[in-house]
Amino acid sequence: MAMRTNSRNVRIEWGDCDPMGIVFFPRYFAIFDDSTAYLFESVFGLTKYQLHEALDFAGFPLVDARARFIIPSRYGDDVVVESTIGEFRNSSFVVNHRILRSGELAVEGSETRVWVVRDPDDPRGLKSQPIPREVKERFAAA
Amino acid sequence: MAMRTNSRNVRIEWGDCDPMGIVFFPRYFAIFDDSTAYLFESVFGLTKYQLHEALDFAGFPLVDARARFIIPSRYGDDVVVESTIGEFRNSSFVVNHRILRSGELAVEGSETRVWVVRDPDDPRGLKSQPIPREVKERFAAA
Amino acid sequence: MAMRTNSRNVRIEWGDCDPMGIVFFPRYFAIFDDSTAYLFESVFGLTKYQLHEALDFAGFPLVDARARFIIPSRYGDDVVVESTIGEFRNSSFVVNHRILRSGELAVEGSETRVWVVRDPDDPRGLKSQPIPREVKERFAAA
Amino acid sequence: MAMRTNSRNVRIEWGDCDPMGIVFFPRYFAIFDDSTAYLFESVFGLTKYQLHEALDFAGFPLVDARARFIIPSRYGDDVVVESTIGEFRNSSFVVNHRILRSGELAVEGSETRVWVVRDPDDPRGLKSQPIPREVKERFAAA
Repeated sequence: MAMRTNSRNVRIEWGDCDPMGIVFFPRYFAIFDDSTAYLFESVFGLTKYQLHEALDFAGFPLVDARARFIIPSRYGDDVVVESTIGEFRNSSFVVNHRILRSGELAVEGSETRVWVVRDPDDPRGLKSQPIPREVKERFAAA
Repeated sequence: MAMRTNSRNVRIEWGDCDPMGIVFFPRYFAIFDDSTAYLFESVFGLTKYQLHEALDFAGFPLVDARARFIIPSRYGDDVVVESTIGEFRNSSFVVNHRILRSGELAVEGSETRVWVVRDPDDPRGLKSQPIPREVKERFAAA
Repeated sequence: MAMRTNSRNVRIEWGDCDPMGIVFFPRYFAIFDDSTAYLFESVFGLTKYQLHEALDFAGFPLVDARARFIIPSRYGDDVVVESTIGEFRNSSFVVNHRILRSGELAVEGSETRVWVVRDPDDPRGLKSQPIPREVKERFAAA
Repeated sequence: MAMRTNSRNVRIEWGDCDPMGIVFFPRYFAIFDDSTAYLFESVFGLTKYQLHEALDFAGFPLVDARARFIIPSRYGDDVVVESTIGEFRNSSFVVNHRILRSGELAVEGSETRVWVVRDPDDPRGLKSQPIPREVKERFAAA
């Protein structure tokens, strides 16, 4: 079954670019992070902040991230980011991202994230927890 | 005569925020920088990259920046940024920015920028130059 | 009475710089923010994280920030940042920063910050509070 | 033959961290990028800026980057970054990075980079070029 894909436009800004005039690559991972929040928002109709409150969790930090950089982009470019869930596991999930520039694949990458809550035994600690059934169902229905 | 004001929406992202959950303040200055590019784009119909080529200049680096932070914003918030030219001088200009959250003034600030070109005597150097008449005229007509 | 000044070396990195090859100015404000943490660390012998725990506060967010950019720096440059308390008020304080490049003043700026704690009536809210006497005494003795 | 490893200390700053209080993961890739510059500096005794001039190239942009995040770090933490060349190919090379926190592996990752020069046929374009023999020799001798 195909998972929902969220697509959004991103302008590459001057401050995203390095002295070569192209995107400083860590910025692509920030774009991925933003895009995962928008993917969830497209399914739940809630911002990441509201989702944290509604589902009572602390976030979904990364355990793995990777990207291939195929075509460079520079400031003033408009790109399209397509994001989709690659896989839901018990307490982790994979998000795949594709960045298109003028219709061509410019960057592709993935994030593996873990569902975490505040550790009741350590107010500043985090611990993983199974992804709520509701989350998987909402994505399946989307 | 009132100068053109450009208004745009900005989503505060997770990665913009600090451990208090509110915007890490240097990010507001990046939002100002982006917003100045959009202000020029609203007048010239050109991205900053295209403007650099069309007007044959290297950029408009800052000589002064300041901001007052009145109401904090957090991830998931949508804010409005209003930007306008405060003053055109010979080779420098002032841009004023106001960030509104739920209609209330959340941040206000200004940038003073200098018009620069590559220094012909030093390929990596920059030197200031009078702002092209065309720029002032286009803003006046906008 | 002269307040303690903390001095530290900062390398300008590739990722700090923009397509002109010079520091993207919001990065200077991040350098200020880091430098304020180091100023406190030089007086208390505690990192910002440890200080939050020791003094039971949530942080010192900004209400005002400003900078003048005098000499540009580029990647690979080593600069010196000198930071000192400009003034302690009841619940706010001013930090002054000077960035020197090859011994010359390259950037100068200031931050006005407010001492805040978590709002007991709103678990995600923040409220200002008088700066603890201990903080002022430690700086006076430093 | 073992390639040179460069090791350096990095302080995790407040502005590196997200609302969970841990490092916003794109920041690790910026730390990788900085660390690659320091690895070259440890071999050549030149900053990245000086290296660009000495070897007449434009940079080594990424074609692939990946990281595994094993132990989170938070602001105030001091970590050690160990960086080494994984492989030199014709016009690309791999850099491996390990970030240690309290002696334990916290993050590991790699970058694949391409050696590029300004394209003589397109003043704003970049094209790959074989890595200079001198670079490989200097690393082999280091």
